[in-house]
Amino acid sequence: MTVLWRDRPVGIVGLGLIGGSLALDLRARGATVHALVHRQATAERAWQRGLADRIATDPQVLEGCGLVVLALPLDRLLDPPQALLDALPRQAVLTDVGSVKAPVLAQWQPRCPRFVASHPMAGTAEAGVEAGQPALFQGRPWVATPTEATDPEALEQVRALAEAVGARWLTCSAIAHDRAVALISHLPVLVSAALLLVADRAAPDPELAELVRALASSGFADTTRVGGGNPELGTLMATHNRQALGEALAAYGQQLAALQALVEQGHFDQLEAALTRARELRPPFL
Amino acid sequence: MTVLWRDRPVGIVGLGLIGGSLALDLRARGATVHALVHRQATAERAWQRGLADRIATDPQVLEGCGLVVLALPLDRLLDPPQALLDALPRQAVLTDVGSVKAPVLAQWQPRCPRFVASHPMAGTAEAGVEAGQPALFQGRPWVATPTEATDPEALEQVRALAEAVGARWLTCSAIAHDRAVALISHLPVLVSAALLLVADRAAPDPELAELVRALASSGFADTTRVGGGNPELGTLMATHNRQALGEALAAYGQQLAALQALVEQGHFDQLEAALTRARELRPPFL
Repeated sequence: MTVLWRDRPVGIVGLGLIGGSLALDLRARGATVHALVHRQATAERAWQRGLADRIATDPQVLEGCGLVVLALPLDRLLDPPQALLDALPRQAVLTDVGSVKAPVLAQWQPRCPRFVASHPMAGTAEAGVEAGQPALFQGRPWVATPTEATDPEALEQVRALAEAVGARWLTCSAIAHDRAVALISHLPVLVSAALLLVADRAAPDPELAELVRALASSGFADTTRVGGGNPELGTLMATHNRQALGEALAAYGQQLAALQALVEQGHFDQLEAALTRARELRPPFL
Repeated sequence: MTVLWRDRPVGIVGLGLIGGSLALDLRARGATVHALVHRQATAERAWQRGLADRIATDPQVLEGCGLVVLALPLDRLLDPPQALLDALPRQAVLTDVGSVKAPVLAQWQPRCPRFVASHPMAGTAEAGVEAGQPALFQGRPWVATPTEATDPEALEQVRALAEAVGARWLTCSAIAHDRAVALISHLPVLVSAALLLVADRAAPDPELAELVRALASSGFADTTRVGGGNPELGTLMATHNRQALGEALAAYGQQLAALQALVEQGHFDQLEAALTRARELRPPFL
């Protein structure tokens, strides 16, 4: 198999955290990167940072690319501009980096014969053209969600790309992916945000409000980190993974109500058993 | 005012994380520390670590101490052995380090005229005689919950002790303290544990179970850290702060249900507003 990322220019659409990091890693491995960005100011800054070999706001920059990575935010990925669609090279292998997979597949698979839905699970709190950094994907999962209609050779090309930047390659169904990320990524955002909202709301008098802020320690800081993150990102995930997130929230609400009942009814032996189970469960997630 | 911790031996009952750390800091500042521990093996290890000037399993070791710190786990603090009560020097200033204050006050204040309920809010994941470390209290809150019956000079003595080890001194009512720690410390433990339990329970088939573990990232690790902590400690807090924790759980359940309704009904503008509010709320807690 000709390895496309090495043999022909790689197109990257969007040079934010994921697109920019991928561009840096690929160039460091000798690839030629052609990047499409939305705004001229981004193109200039990306050029100063050395993110790609060619950078333009005109989709024609993707001409000749053998593999194109759509590193767009979920909303733009699900509503792509016609000019981008028109400019994608006919026979190119195409993949995305979206954090929800079923709606991406529904949108792109019927349209592009060599589309592979994928999700590199690497992130920092940063975003935008300044955020890209080397080795972001090293050791992190890169999940593809092929279907029966997925071109096997296209899948192998995306795998070669992921492994070139040090990611751990995994495949599963889009539905399994979306349920899994609902549980371990999207649900924690809301659980964590609710803790901030209630710590504020449940302390209505100023003295108590000041006290909760003064006494909050590293445990509270850790538990609320993801809930205090980017609201646009959290909302995009909820919007496009609504069903799986709704199911996860319902299951979570039941679990928490069960713990609440143990506290209210004074069943502290059972509470300790539940906390012991929670402690045992955690290491395999780390 | 004679500063008791400097002028006479300080008694410390229990040489776990809090007692051991306090002993190390006080000795480093020239104090003489007499420590009472439960088991002979602990006494020997504490002696090897240089935690105190005298260490014994006999409560008589507290004789002559001007200030005694009860650094016991909450259950033993609330059910003290008679031999300890008999051995406490009559006129000594007495304080505790318990993480819930109303039941401690109810137990100790009627019994000891110079008792001051207090809570140094410093912790690590460690416990036991190996856990004590220097400078644990530096910059951390040390909350006292005096009542009208609290001896003002005893309160000043405990303040001098807290400030000697670099803690930030605060006072509030026991009820306000217990409500505040329910919100920022005890509630997060259950919220976080529920996330581990549901990530396990909501992935009943082995493939999905493996996937959620493979895809969990630093966000999940942070959000579940306190829920995967010491089950005995979490249970003790819940047992002795049952009412405030029950109220916090109820308020939290309502808050989460409100977010769930926004997801289920597709009110994503309102969801983004709530997440934006959560992001704004977080910095003052850090």
